[in-house]
Amino acid sequence: MSEKVLIETLNMGIKNNHIDAVCFKIPTSAKTAMITTKNRYAAAPVILSRKNILESQPRYILVNSGNANACTGKIGSSNSLKCTNLISQKFNCKSSEVLLFSTGIIGRQLPMDKIEKKLNSHKFSFKSSWKSASKAIMTTDKFNKCISRSFLINRKKITINAICKGAGMIEPNMATMLAFISIDVNLNKRLLNKLIKEVNDTSFNAISVDGEMSTNDSVILISTGENKKTDFNISSNYKKLSYELSFLCQDLAKMIIKDGEGSTKVITINVHASKNNAQARSVAYSLANSNLIKTAMFGADPNWGRIIAKLGSLNHIDYKPEKVDLHINKMLIFTGGIQSNKCNLKSLNKSMKKNEIVVDISLNSGSSSHSILTSDLSHEYVHINSAYTT
Amino acid sequence: MSEKVLIETLNMGIKNNHIDAVCFKIPTSAKTAMITTKNRYAAAPVILSRKNILESQPRYILVNSGNANACTGKIGSSNSLKCTNLISQKFNCKSSEVLLFSTGIIGRQLPMDKIEKKLNSHKFSFKSSWKSASKAIMTTDKFNKCISRSFLINRKKITINAICKGAGMIEPNMATMLAFISIDVNLNKRLLNKLIKEVNDTSFNAISVDGEMSTNDSVILISTGENKKTDFNISSNYKKLSYELSFLCQDLAKMIIKDGEGSTKVITINVHASKNNAQARSVAYSLANSNLIKTAMFGADPNWGRIIAKLGSLNHIDYKPEKVDLHINKMLIFTGGIQSNKCNLKSLNKSMKKNEIVVDISLNSGSSSHSILTSDLSHEYVHINSAYTT
Repeated sequence: MSEKVLIETLNMGIKNNHIDAVCFKIPTSAKTAMITTKNRYAAAPVILSRKNILESQPRYILVNSGNANACTGKIGSSNSLKCTNLISQKFNCKSSEVLLFSTGIIGRQLPMDKIEKKLNSHKFSFKSSWKSASKAIMTTDKFNKCISRSFLINRKKITINAICKGAGMIEPNMATMLAFISIDVNLNKRLLNKLIKEVNDTSFNAISVDGEMSTNDSVILISTGENKKTDFNISSNYKKLSYELSFLCQDLAKMIIKDGEGSTKVITINVHASKNNAQARSVAYSLANSNLIKTAMFGADPNWGRIIAKLGSLNHIDYKPEKVDLHINKMLIFTGGIQSNKCNLKSLNKSMKKNEIVVDISLNSGSSSHSILTSDLSHEYVHINSAYTT
Repeated sequence: MSEKVLIETLNMGIKNNHIDAVCFKIPTSAKTAMITTKNRYAAAPVILSRKNILESQPRYILVNSGNANACTGKIGSSNSLKCTNLISQKFNCKSSEVLLFSTGIIGRQLPMDKIEKKLNSHKFSFKSSWKSASKAIMTTDKFNKCISRSFLINRKKITINAICKGAGMIEPNMATMLAFISIDVNLNKRLLNKLIKEVNDTSFNAISVDGEMSTNDSVILISTGENKKTDFNISSNYKKLSYELSFLCQDLAKMIIKDGEGSTKVITINVHASKNNAQARSVAYSLANSNLIKTAMFGADPNWGRIIAKLGSLNHIDYKPEKVDLHINKMLIFTGGIQSNKCNLKSLNKSMKKNEIVVDISLNSGSSSHSILTSDLSHEYVHINSAYTT
């Protein structure tokens, strides 16, 4: 039996004549870790997967796009169970050995007749690529998101294959996103769970398109059990792996922001010298989710007053207003409570026309910092989201 | 001397050839109360007015539009003081008897040469109307906001004259708004301060266009000292006055939402049966400020899943997900954790095409409720805000 994660993409009849599902076959030697949404209306498949991963080592993962199976009540739960049963019958495994994820419209029931017929009749060869899997899980995404990358640890080549989806309803914990990642190493469950949390905090949980948290967000990390000779209990090995995986996931997260609904720019918000991390994070998200800031970024409008006014509105943050420094694209804009002498609004406007904008705001009230990525707010965002279901 | 508030509108040279300022002359018998922004970067005129109202009974109020005089440092403070000095010299009163308010772009210095020249040369006749004052304070407003209304208390006619401005940067505490209200009654300072707070909480502090809090928000309430015979220490008289004034201010607040930048609909969010008022308020604002909900409203998209997903993301709120009921325009949409049997998405879509949408969400976890007004998020909002200063 192969020690690689194998993939089959298929049409289950949710989208007309489009690939709308992917099935992952996980090697028996693998360990799997998972992080799911904190939304109180977590979707039926998420709830079932949380239960299953506690009971069994997952052997199959079925993912569909086009229907979130969220807010679908008992029928939705029963349909989720039916899906895992269909896979378990097909491949002769326990139903609890199947994880299930869905993404798409909230509140609609899955077309179970079609799904049952397709799953029963489909001949699985498990010869699809990670790239085709990344296409199968797209919803409002404009491009697929797939990265495969190799590196060396102790002269041994290690490969990460990873895909994700997401474009709207994106804020951490997590985002309207799914990510599936495989690493061809042998990690015990404890290290795998540590790794997924670490990596997630600095990548998928450090982005925001629109301040929304979806009902279906999940990140799944699989260590295949290959490369058994590299011992990740050795701290330097683990650190190297964590570094490489974080880097890759940050690149995936950046792809989500680039594909943020209507996004024309990737905006990095760096909050520096905050009293503590919670405050740094809170400031970063407040700026990232401000419509006035996001529209100014879209229009390359050097209206820095909106950033300062937003900061000023956050009454739970410790700082002295006159000690705050604001840089945009490395130019000092605001210092000492007033526009900097060095600030040239024409140059700022010109520099804001780039595809990437970096905002650095230093509170000068401590030593904590937090960075997040966000997108701008464009006409296209309104266009996409004013006519999604209809 | 007249016991009415008198008004002069003028051009101070901030906007080219447009009325950009208004001066109110307050009767000596009047009392004045004020509520100002909680923004930490409160504008220079706001800071000066806070100080002045503690020192003296205001006799003049000068308001300009086109420049917020916020984030303007020591020069901004000194310019504010110059403005009040110019008025005090002109009208032979103390500088502390002048209140000053500004609205417009943040971070630019006032053109003091022009202002000084104009204030010195202008012949004040104080014959302008409340309507012309409401026009003088407009910035991105598409229409002026002015209400005059009379009613009887103990068979005595009482008149309220009120104006406000605001269209963007609108969230409570307060909004990017200014309001000036006069009532021709005799109220002591204690009752006047009680009244302004009560009225503000259910009107100007119960709206949100974009979740932003400005640096310049202020509400000023003047009781002229007329109608001395009506005693507002009598509870029924006070209640009647508070009711009428609240009603009028709610109408003014609704005008702000109607004029919300790019607004095409007025949306009422009613949160019912919440554990306590703070939670009801928090849910109401979270729904009101969700871009996904606001764009769905703009497009009349019956995508109720976005409302439920937003509620689900609020982990600090006490409720049981399966006990939540959602009505939109009086139709039961979501109940028992699932779309209601009675929900017809086509009818919902049709009803959402109206100019007013009412969302009722019942948490069934207590007896507190909170209502706020908000606007939708349209192409026009993005258009306006991506090119404001440039």
